[in-house]
Amino acid sequence: MKKNLLKDFGLIFSEKPAVAAGVFTSNWVKAAPLLLTREHLHGNKCQAVLVNSGNANACTGKEGMADAECLAEETARLLEIDPELVAVASTGVIGERLPVKKMLTMLPALCQEMGNTRIEDFARAIMTTDNGPKISTRSVNVEGTSITVAGIAKGAGMINPSMATMLVFILTDASVRRRSLQAWVKEAADRTFNRITVDGDTSTNDMVLVLANGYARNRLLSAKGPGALRFREMLFDVMNDLARKIIQDGEGATKLIEVRVEQAKSVREADTIARSVANSPLVKTSFFGEEVNWGRIIAAAGKTAFPISFEKIDLFINGIPLVEKGVALGAKNEKRVQKEVTKKEIIVTLTLHQGTRQASVLTTDFSYDYIKINAGYRT
Amino acid sequence: MKKNLLKDFGLIFSEKPAVAAGVFTSNWVKAAPLLLTREHLHGNKCQAVLVNSGNANACTGKEGMADAECLAEETARLLEIDPELVAVASTGVIGERLPVKKMLTMLPALCQEMGNTRIEDFARAIMTTDNGPKISTRSVNVEGTSITVAGIAKGAGMINPSMATMLVFILTDASVRRRSLQAWVKEAADRTFNRITVDGDTSTNDMVLVLANGYARNRLLSAKGPGALRFREMLFDVMNDLARKIIQDGEGATKLIEVRVEQAKSVREADTIARSVANSPLVKTSFFGEEVNWGRIIAAAGKTAFPISFEKIDLFINGIPLVEKGVALGAKNEKRVQKEVTKKEIIVTLTLHQGTRQASVLTTDFSYDYIKINAGYRT
Repeated sequence: MKKNLLKDFGLIFSEKPAVAAGVFTSNWVKAAPLLLTREHLHGNKCQAVLVNSGNANACTGKEGMADAECLAEETARLLEIDPELVAVASTGVIGERLPVKKMLTMLPALCQEMGNTRIEDFARAIMTTDNGPKISTRSVNVEGTSITVAGIAKGAGMINPSMATMLVFILTDASVRRRSLQAWVKEAADRTFNRITVDGDTSTNDMVLVLANGYARNRLLSAKGPGALRFREMLFDVMNDLARKIIQDGEGATKLIEVRVEQAKSVREADTIARSVANSPLVKTSFFGEEVNWGRIIAAAGKTAFPISFEKIDLFINGIPLVEKGVALGAKNEKRVQKEVTKKEIIVTLTLHQGTRQASVLTTDFSYDYIKINAGYRT
Repeated sequence: MKKNLLKDFGLIFSEKPAVAAGVFTSNWVKAAPLLLTREHLHGNKCQAVLVNSGNANACTGKEGMADAECLAEETARLLEIDPELVAVASTGVIGERLPVKKMLTMLPALCQEMGNTRIEDFARAIMTTDNGPKISTRSVNVEGTSITVAGIAKGAGMINPSMATMLVFILTDASVRRRSLQAWVKEAADRTFNRITVDGDTSTNDMVLVLANGYARNRLLSAKGPGALRFREMLFDVMNDLARKIIQDGEGATKLIEVRVEQAKSVREADTIARSVANSPLVKTSFFGEEVNWGRIIAAAGKTAFPISFEKIDLFINGIPLVEKGVALGAKNEKRVQKEVTKKEIIVTLTLHQGTRQASVLTTDFSYDYIKINAGYRT
C-alpha cells in the first residue's frame, strides 16, 4: 500500500482463542474492517488480528466489505482457525479499494514469519504519520500469578476519538470474564483515549481491541472477584500511557497541553468547554509560538452553548495564576508564565466557580509541520 | 496601540443623530466597548462611532468599562453631542488595558481631521491582521429618491461569528423605521456574517452596527412600506459582499471554500454538518495542498451528533461528482476534480438524501501563513 507492502502489514495471533472486547468509533461513517470486526466480536472470542496501514478501507461500500471478509477468510484458512475468530483493522487513506490481490500473495509470508517478529515490528507495521512505535506494557501479581498487559497503538492525526482512538491493541495473558473485560475497557477508554484530541477530527476507523487469552492461568477475573481492581488499574495505566504517546506524537506537535476545566455545573459543561479550548486553532498556534495569549483561551471557553461568567473565572498556566475572578494579574505573572510556555508540557486550568464538576482533555499545539504533513498526505 | 496611534483610531460622525440597529457576539465573554454600545443603542439613536484597533478592551473588568465610558464621554464633549449617542468598538489583543491617556490626547486631532478623511482611511484605521480595507457600497432608487448604503468591515482571524462578525459598520442616508432596521440587519447577518468561518473561534468583540440618518429624505421605510424590499436587498448585498471580503482575506487563506449541505432533515442538521466540514483542520489543510482528499470531507461530516448514512450520500466538488450514493466514482472523476482544487474558489456539495433542508458555510483553507500570523500575534 505504501512502499514496502510487508512492512505495512501486521498480524497478531494467540495460540488459543482469547476472550475479546472492543470499543469503536462513534463517527456515523464506519470503515468496512471495523464493521466486520464488530460483527465477529459478537462471538466474544478472537484469535488473530490482521492489520494494514496505508489504506483505511473506509467509504468503499459493499466491495470494501467483501475485501475485508476475503482477507479474514484467507487468514483463517492459513492459520487453520474459524474466520469468525479473525479481526481486521485498517488505517490510511479513505475511499480507496484495498489492493487485495497483492495482500493475499503476502499473507503466507506474514503467517510464516510469526514467532520471529517482535511486538515492535507489529507496532511499526501499523504506523502512518506516526514518528515511532507506541507500546506500553505492565505486569502485576494477582494471588501469586503474574499477569501481563501489553498495548500497541498507532495514531497521530484525525485524532478526536469519541469512543476509542485510531488503532489500539491490548494483549493480556489474564483469564478474564468477557462482560467484565468489555466494561473495563469501555471505562478506561472514556478516561484515556476519549480525552485526547489532535485536530478535533474523529476517524472512521477508530478501534480499541483487547484480547485476553488466559495463559497466565490465574483465577478468572470478574467484576466482583479479587484481583479485578489491580487488573483494571493495569489496563488503565497501559491505555493512559498509549493515549499520552499518541498526543506526544500528534502530527507536527511540539507541546503536550492539558486543558482542565474545574468547578463546572456538569461534566458535560466542563468537557465541552475543555474541548473548545483544546481544539481552538488560535489557542494551539499561540502555544506553538510560545506566547502567553490568555485572551484566546477565555474567548474559546466563552464560545460554547454553556454560559460562563468571566467575572468568576480563575485561569492558571502550570499552576501560575494569570486571571483571578476575571481580573488579569498583570505583567509580573505573565512574565513567570512566559517561562512556562517554553516548556514541553503545559497545563491550562480554568476554574469556573459555578459548580463542582470537572473534566480535562489532552491536546497538542498547531505547527508548520501540521500543515506540511496534512497538505500533502496523499502525494 | 500599534505603531502609529492615529492610524489605529477611527471616527464615524453623522451630522444629525441616525436611527441605529446592531447585532453583537454570542460569546459569553463580551468586551467592554460592546457592552457599552449595546447599552447606548437602547436609545435607538447614534451619531458617532469611535473605533480603535490593536487592543480589544476585552476581559478588562470594571476598569475596562470605565475606559470605554471615558472615551465615549470625551468624544461626545468634543463633538458637542450626548454621550449616549456615541458608540465605541475595539479590536485587537484581549486582556490588556487601553492606553486611555494617550488616546484622549489624540482625540481632538481625530475630530478636527473629520471631513478631510475618506471612508478608506477609516477602513484602514480599524484593520488588524487584515491585508486591506474592506468596503462595499450600493445605491438604489426608491420612489424617485436615491438611497445609498456603505459598509465597512474588518476581520481576518477569530472569525466564526454567531451573531455578527468582528467589526462591521453600515452607513446609509435612508430614512428607516428603527424596528424594521433591526429586523433586517439581524436577518441579513444570519444569512451573511453568520455563515462564514475562518477558524471556528468566535470573538468577544463581534459587532455589526447600522446607522441610518435619513439624509436621503425618502418616505420612511418600514416593514410594509414600498421600497423596503429594495432596501433590504441592498443591505443584504452590502453585508454579503463584506462577508465574502472577510473570508477572502482570512488569515493565511489561499482559497475561498463554500460547503453546502443539501437534503438534510433540518436546517440545524445541515448547518452543523457544514460547519463540521468547514472547520475541519484536515479538510482545510488538504485544500491548501490542492489535494482531492474527499475521505476527510466524509469523515468530518460523519463526526457530528446528527446521524448520516454514507450509503445515501452524493459528494460534488465544483459540480463534479466524486461519490454517488456512497460509491466512489473513481480515478477519472478524481482527475477532473484535481483541476478544480487548484482554483481559488471551491464549492463542496454534500447531498444527504434524508430530507429537504439545506445550509451553506463559507470558509478558508489552512496554510503555513495561518500558523505564522497566529504563532506570533502579540510579538
